[in-house]
Amino acid sequence: MQVTELFNDTRVTADSDQQFATDGRLRHLLTLQGIDRKRMTALLDSAERWLSPMGSPAVRSDALQGFTVANLFFEPSTRTRASFDLAARRLGADVLNLDVNTSSRKKGESILDTIYTLQAMQVDVFVIRDASAGVPAYIARHVDDHVSVLNAGESEVSHPTQGLLDLLTIRRHKGDFSKLNVAIVGDIAHSRVARSAAQGLTTMGVGELRLVSPPALAPSQEDFPGARIMSSLDDGLREADVVMALRIQRERIGNLDGIPGIDEYFANYGVSSERLRQSAPDVIVMHPGPMNRGIEIESALADSARSVITEQVASGVAVRMAILCAVTGKDDH
Amino acid sequence: MQVTELFNDTRVTADSDQQFATDGRLRHLLTLQGIDRKRMTALLDSAERWLSPMGSPAVRSDALQGFTVANLFFEPSTRTRASFDLAARRLGADVLNLDVNTSSRKKGESILDTIYTLQAMQVDVFVIRDASAGVPAYIARHVDDHVSVLNAGESEVSHPTQGLLDLLTIRRHKGDFSKLNVAIVGDIAHSRVARSAAQGLTTMGVGELRLVSPPALAPSQEDFPGARIMSSLDDGLREADVVMALRIQRERIGNLDGIPGIDEYFANYGVSSERLRQSAPDVIVMHPGPMNRGIEIESALADSARSVITEQVASGVAVRMAILCAVTGKDDH
Amino acid sequence: MQVTELFNDTRVTADSDQQFATDGRLRHLLTLQGIDRKRMTALLDSAERWLSPMGSPAVRSDALQGFTVANLFFEPSTRTRASFDLAARRLGADVLNLDVNTSSRKKGESILDTIYTLQAMQVDVFVIRDASAGVPAYIARHVDDHVSVLNAGESEVSHPTQGLLDLLTIRRHKGDFSKLNVAIVGDIAHSRVARSAAQGLTTMGVGELRLVSPPALAPSQEDFPGARIMSSLDDGLREADVVMALRIQRERIGNLDGIPGIDEYFANYGVSSERLRQSAPDVIVMHPGPMNRGIEIESALADSARSVITEQVASGVAVRMAILCAVTGKDDH
Repeated sequence: MQVTELFNDTRVTADSDQQFATDGRLRHLLTLQGIDRKRMTALLDSAERWLSPMGSPAVRSDALQGFTVANLFFEPSTRTRASFDLAARRLGADVLNLDVNTSSRKKGESILDTIYTLQAMQVDVFVIRDASAGVPAYIARHVDDHVSVLNAGESEVSHPTQGLLDLLTIRRHKGDFSKLNVAIVGDIAHSRVARSAAQGLTTMGVGELRLVSPPALAPSQEDFPGARIMSSLDDGLREADVVMALRIQRERIGNLDGIPGIDEYFANYGVSSERLRQSAPDVIVMHPGPMNRGIEIESALADSARSVITEQVASGVAVRMAILCAVTGKDDH
Repeated sequence: MQVTELFNDTRVTADSDQQFATDGRLRHLLTLQGIDRKRMTALLDSAERWLSPMGSPAVRSDALQGFTVANLFFEPSTRTRASFDLAARRLGADVLNLDVNTSSRKKGESILDTIYTLQAMQVDVFVIRDASAGVPAYIARHVDDHVSVLNAGESEVSHPTQGLLDLLTIRRHKGDFSKLNVAIVGDIAHSRVARSAAQGLTTMGVGELRLVSPPALAPSQEDFPGARIMSSLDDGLREADVVMALRIQRERIGNLDGIPGIDEYFANYGVSSERLRQSAPDVIVMHPGPMNRGIEIESALADSARSVITEQVASGVAVRMAILCAVTGKDDH
Repeated sequence: MQVTELFNDTRVTADSDQQFATDGRLRHLLTLQGIDRKRMTALLDSAERWLSPMGSPAVRSDALQGFTVANLFFEPSTRTRASFDLAARRLGADVLNLDVNTSSRKKGESILDTIYTLQAMQVDVFVIRDASAGVPAYIARHVDDHVSVLNAGESEVSHPTQGLLDLLTIRRHKGDFSKLNVAIVGDIAHSRVARSAAQGLTTMGVGELRLVSPPALAPSQEDFPGARIMSSLDDGLREADVVMALRIQRERIGNLDGIPGIDEYFANYGVSSERLRQSAPDVIVMHPGPMNRGIEIESALADSARSVITEQVASGVAVRMAILCAVTGKDDH
């Protein structure tokens, strides 16, 4: 049976209780939905401990010595795979990187049989990236009690470690979320990054969350309760404290009303120093990467002092170390 | 020179003495042929020590600290590659995973030059999977005295670590082999799994070995001395204690007399609960994976209490740890 | 912006000062140009310590414990990637192997953004192989102060670790460079191996350096100051102490005047026992690999006692360990 067949209904979406063990401990990380502010704060606090200044040695531990982490990336990825890989190895785990496109799926093995096989080899944590919605939750429903599943990017639905690293980066710069105006700009409709960031920010009590996109890429309000859906970039950036530009697929630009090409997209929805003039003076600029410079973000801005884009990457390793410790019960380490 | 040219004669087949050092120690594992019952029993005993209950931490050691193991898989494989990888790393070895399709062979380098190069980098153990018969034995003939070669799947000829893991799984469930009726079902003619299992079972003195397949997929008797070659599944399963279903390539089904499609194949040669009614009440069901559920094996049966399929996978890591220790002289560790 | 656009001018070539830190320490290894004899000798001395006899365990250390080395190979490579991988791991570093073809570049991310991302994950050393000239130097200009870049093969321009391993191999066999006649044979024009070897040999004061090739593959004299450019193999090999055959791309052979095919190439420029009759009696034969046996080198000669080809490979790991220690300031380890 193909994964695409399995996931053509909505039952497979993660329900938020599924990620907790019966004793209340975080067992899987599938979505930020249902993780309350106290727990989220604790995760961010834990992640802080794994940060170190650029140029100093990476923080290491043997907390996961003897554990095996398998990265199953059904979608190609350099950065997220590398981030999970380093996070696990700096905690002392053995890491198995499986390029699933070129082996199992060729042979038509079902995804669950791949999981059961690896579980029998005593894999303790599965890190899953998949283009189909519901795959991480589906796997989490079937693994043994002592095994954890981490969602490393799920279709357009969820990317919870990205959400946490965004929160950590914002918190380190801005502190209290309740006073912040946060604008997310770009292809909101198709963005798992926007969804997870919005869930995290809402839980942390963000002042105002603005979602700015061309009308054709606007999300449904029900996916983003409490957020302001906007189509004017200038309105969206006004007095913003945090601006997050999203990656847009170039192919999508051709189908946007009144936006015939890349130049027009940048003119209308590109985040630039010029457009940030009405934002807060200390506005920070974020991007999940990989960037299309000159399309969704001005290249010079991405390299400016306002940009916290490389900090996001550093936060990503720290957040993933914290999550790995949490789900394996090593967070007091 | 291409590998395919090199191996168009039978001289390259492993001769059973080749795998022993002059002092009688196991140096390579190329085939189960020629490994006597005493040595095979010792390998299984050694593998037992590397097993641990599901949910408990993987057993680890530093027996192979300082050794380098290179996985050269000329055929794609997730499970066998991962199993060898984890086995070597849980023993403390450095592991080099080489995807040979995408590099050396593109440049036309001969397989021996690749081996000599890696040997000069102080690789101690080569794990080889190849679609051509004779490649592991050919490599074993050319490596330096202190270097070992493990066959991780060789054309349709041999898959000795699979044979050992099958033996280990059977022994843990059934004990004495001499009282057992074992049925292997499916595409026997093309199966390296069947060949290695049959060699192992024969050496261990199995009561009766039955090879059940459509006539077009029956093996020659000389390849399986002592086994009963059968075409009736019901006859084959009668009072069987162990049933091993083999993977069949879907393309092969179209060419079988009286078996126009998958449904007919399953009806005639699919192992199912229904068909097992005349087997021993405590029959166990095996499959080397990856499974075609609903073709060679009933999906529900694969997940039932009779199935020992995931145990086979766990046994696989243990057997490979035992073999790695044996060929490096660390089996007293 | 594509790398190919970036590097269409010569400004990006490494300038030799760029690879030293302000305190004079070697920080990057981009080219052998500008590394003086004293420093080169020290690097070779350091590499000697990482060699061990074949059959004895690889030399190991924890000098790079806590460091992260990223192998970014934009060109496929088994041997050089494996060599750097093992060098880094035998020093205790974490190694990240990134197959950049199949991920970042698919998404159109700029090479610098990939580097910045990995740098933010606290990668300490980048090992770069690229088909475009200038990429390693370009990256070296942009990384943070504490980060090092090692050139693992750059277009037709430079392959400095190959140059060092060639020097080490020659020195171990011949000692004093000033008395040596060294002949490099084959496609000199397109060879980064020849360029780095020539730079190294010149710095070490080689007696005579001869570059032998078909006229169409002869280099410009300004690229190889002091070398003798020759088209007669017999003249080139006369009284040679060291002969290095270069790999030739088969496609190039068809375009050579008077050399219609492989047989004619071998007859004219293939290094063979027959052709070495007028060389020094203790001549050694080298090849950077992977070899086209029977094209640029006689197969039997490559396996003969005169061949030091596998020693070159062993020297390669040692040289890379020495370089990794040097650029991370661990060379007194």
